[in-house]
Amino acid sequence: KINKERLLSTINTSANYGALPNGGLCRLALSEDDRKIRDIFMEWMKECRLDIRIDDVGNMYGRRPGKNPDAHPVVLGSHLDTQPIGGRYDGILGVMGALEVVRTLNDYGIETERPIEIVNFTNEEGARFIPSMLGSGIVANAITQGEVLKIVDKDHLKFVDELKTIGYKGSSENRLKEMYCYFELHIEQGPILEANRQSIGAVTGIQGISTLEVVITGRTSHAGTTPMENRNDAMLSAAKMIQDVYKSYENFPGSLITIGQIQSLPNVTNSVAGQVVFSIDIRHPEDAIRMLITKELKERLSTTALINKMDLLIKDLMEVKAEKFSGKIVREIQLAANKLGYSSMKLISGAGHDAKFMNQMAPTGMIFIPSIGGVSHCEEEFSTDDDIEKGVQVLLELVLRFANR
Amino acid sequence: KINKERLLSTINTSANYGALPNGGLCRLALSEDDRKIRDIFMEWMKECRLDIRIDDVGNMYGRRPGKNPDAHPVVLGSHLDTQPIGGRYDGILGVMGALEVVRTLNDYGIETERPIEIVNFTNEEGARFIPSMLGSGIVANAITQGEVLKIVDKDHLKFVDELKTIGYKGSSENRLKEMYCYFELHIEQGPILEANRQSIGAVTGIQGISTLEVVITGRTSHAGTTPMENRNDAMLSAAKMIQDVYKSYENFPGSLITIGQIQSLPNVTNSVAGQVVFSIDIRHPEDAIRMLITKELKERLSTTALINKMDLLIKDLMEVKAEKFSGKIVREIQLAANKLGYSSMKLISGAGHDAKFMNQMAPTGMIFIPSIGGVSHCEEEFSTDDDIEKGVQVLLELVLRFANR
Ligand SMILES: NC(=O)NCCC(=O)O
Ligand SMILES: NC(=O)NCCC(=O)O
Repeated sequence: KINKERLLSTINTSANYGALPNGGLCRLALSEDDRKIRDIFMEWMKECRLDIRIDDVGNMYGRRPGKNPDAHPVVLGSHLDTQPIGGRYDGILGVMGALEVVRTLNDYGIETERPIEIVNFTNEEGARFIPSMLGSGIVANAITQGEVLKIVDKDHLKFVDELKTIGYKGSSENRLKEMYCYFELHIEQGPILEANRQSIGAVTGIQGISTLEVVITGRTSHAGTTPMENRNDAMLSAAKMIQDVYKSYENFPGSLITIGQIQSLPNVTNSVAGQVVFSIDIRHPEDAIRMLITKELKERLSTTALINKMDLLIKDLMEVKAEKFSGKIVREIQLAANKLGYSSMKLISGAGHDAKFMNQMAPTGMIFIPSIGGVSHCEEEFSTDDDIEKGVQVLLELVLRFANR
Repeated sequence: KINKERLLSTINTSANYGALPNGGLCRLALSEDDRKIRDIFMEWMKECRLDIRIDDVGNMYGRRPGKNPDAHPVVLGSHLDTQPIGGRYDGILGVMGALEVVRTLNDYGIETERPIEIVNFTNEEGARFIPSMLGSGIVANAITQGEVLKIVDKDHLKFVDELKTIGYKGSSENRLKEMYCYFELHIEQGPILEANRQSIGAVTGIQGISTLEVVITGRTSHAGTTPMENRNDAMLSAAKMIQDVYKSYENFPGSLITIGQIQSLPNVTNSVAGQVVFSIDIRHPEDAIRMLITKELKERLSTTALINKMDLLIKDLMEVKAEKFSGKIVREIQLAANKLGYSSMKLISGAGHDAKFMNQMAPTGMIFIPSIGGVSHCEEEFSTDDDIEKGVQVLLELVLRFANR
């Protein structure tokens, strides 16, 4: 049995780095707070006598040897970064849960056949640097080294420079290469487990994401002297387009569409906006439908731009295809839950996760626990201590099964 | 006669500080580029042997003594700051035009009865620090010292600190106190003079401005896991409200409504916007109508917020009442233009100007010259060399008349 007190205390300690007023966290990837929690996590891994590696994009690995040191490891992990207004559980549970599994094995002096590796992936959130799931994407070769060099944040700071600044630029030889399987424990971030009163979710797959950037260019001019008829106001067109975009989801039940980011230029009160830029996040469990939505949206926006005499540029910022996890692993997760006496159900993940890319390297499983109120990416994000305990207990159970095969 | 070459060369020199790629300027108040042009302007005033003063909010004055040194001066001026995407003429013409008047008087060794003062007012644009017309507003006691202490820019940098940083914090004793009259030469920034093929505008008044800040608060949540029905999306409501706002001008012909500034929180692609903040700039020549528009707008926004279950806060960022200039001065401007053989017409100013507050201290006149294409607050802002020359010639003519009374 895991040590619940110790587990909750690690999560509480983590919540001190980047703390927001109402219990949430702002711990953007490669920020000073990210550095601090990494340093602490490093200490904790050392205390567990793990072999520590840092790879070239800052992913942190801690390896516990097995009886058979050359066998491919069972890997457990997630991420320690958060959204700008994020919760204290999100990826943190998966990393601290993995640490608790190792600590428990150490407590009982259990030696497994296979080595076990725990991982903290860099920039899963995609809040500071796009794309999201960056660390895992690179390890799975879904993102090239050339692409990484071009990644910058809103202030044009380079990902690679910021990584050096916080002291977590390691070597590409340290990347995760071969593994037996990957498990990620995560909060559901949605309402399904709670609505169905189930403790454990066995995740069958992850829906795909398209992220677009819409750049609308009109002409800036004086707010006090330009007659309404003579304006080329990018803000007015943006408002129309945002409503267009939100309407389009009505034609595609089950789709999710979000406009989260917006900027205007010159962004002053007394000049007409010459340019407005906004993002669109489009999701659907089926890639074909997501692509259809994206195509229709682009056409709709082009028409609105034409009618309103705006220049329009739509950039594809990110595309992540849907992922299906092995049915065998899904069954094993439910069996493990069952053995421990926990209720469980299958469900699909609305959010992207590092597990998506790990699944391209080895059989992968995801365990969800309920999010109270179904909310995440906000300070109100919450999971109960009991559910947290159950999630990590299932993770331990799976490790005991898979690391001894 | 003024020296046209010299005048154009000072305007060209000014255009080197804060230069944008297409001929425009970004020279925000109290920026490093503002400091540089202030230093140069200071040198030029010294070369003219003017008595220089800097007041407590950074307004710069240069005084040319008159035969009667105790007589109230004739004051000429405008501002050297610009919008983030601004033109090279805007307030610059009024300051450099005033300098050229003094240089011409020096060339010819003309001594006037009254002293002449030229002024560069701080932060007229209101682009970096709200309110606009800050320097002149303070001199006219329309803005209190307590209010000034609270003024910050978008990055929360304090106006008073930034003023010290660029080295232009002087003493309140140096403020402009008593004057005989004030003249400001400015580009029209609108289409009226060009449409009427007139060289000189005699400005009869300035329309009022209300600037509001609308804060819409919903709830941020995860873009991939929050069903559309469960969202409290501030961006969607903002888009509706922006269209509401723009529609309202249709009920009030002659009004101008502008939404220039927008921010979203947390401003990431993969979280629903929990908060959106945008500005509204409302103008009408008649204060009663402007107030009616403002009232109706607030009601409309409240209704939309209620329907969409959003928290709504509307802040009054700035209110500047309409101003009427003396009919006598308007006539004198047209007489001066006429004497010089230039066509002229009366018109009202859509933009706010330092002259608005100067008019509360002494009889004030504004001279407009045509803006090609009627545009301003953009890089395309342009006035012809001939019109610039005519404008400054009229300014000189008025100085010769008023400074010898
Ligand atoms: N789990 C999670 O919130 N990941 C961020 C990537 C996304 O789904 O947008
Ligand atoms: N002249 C000018 O552009 N002033 C800025 C103040 C305003 O009218 O918004």
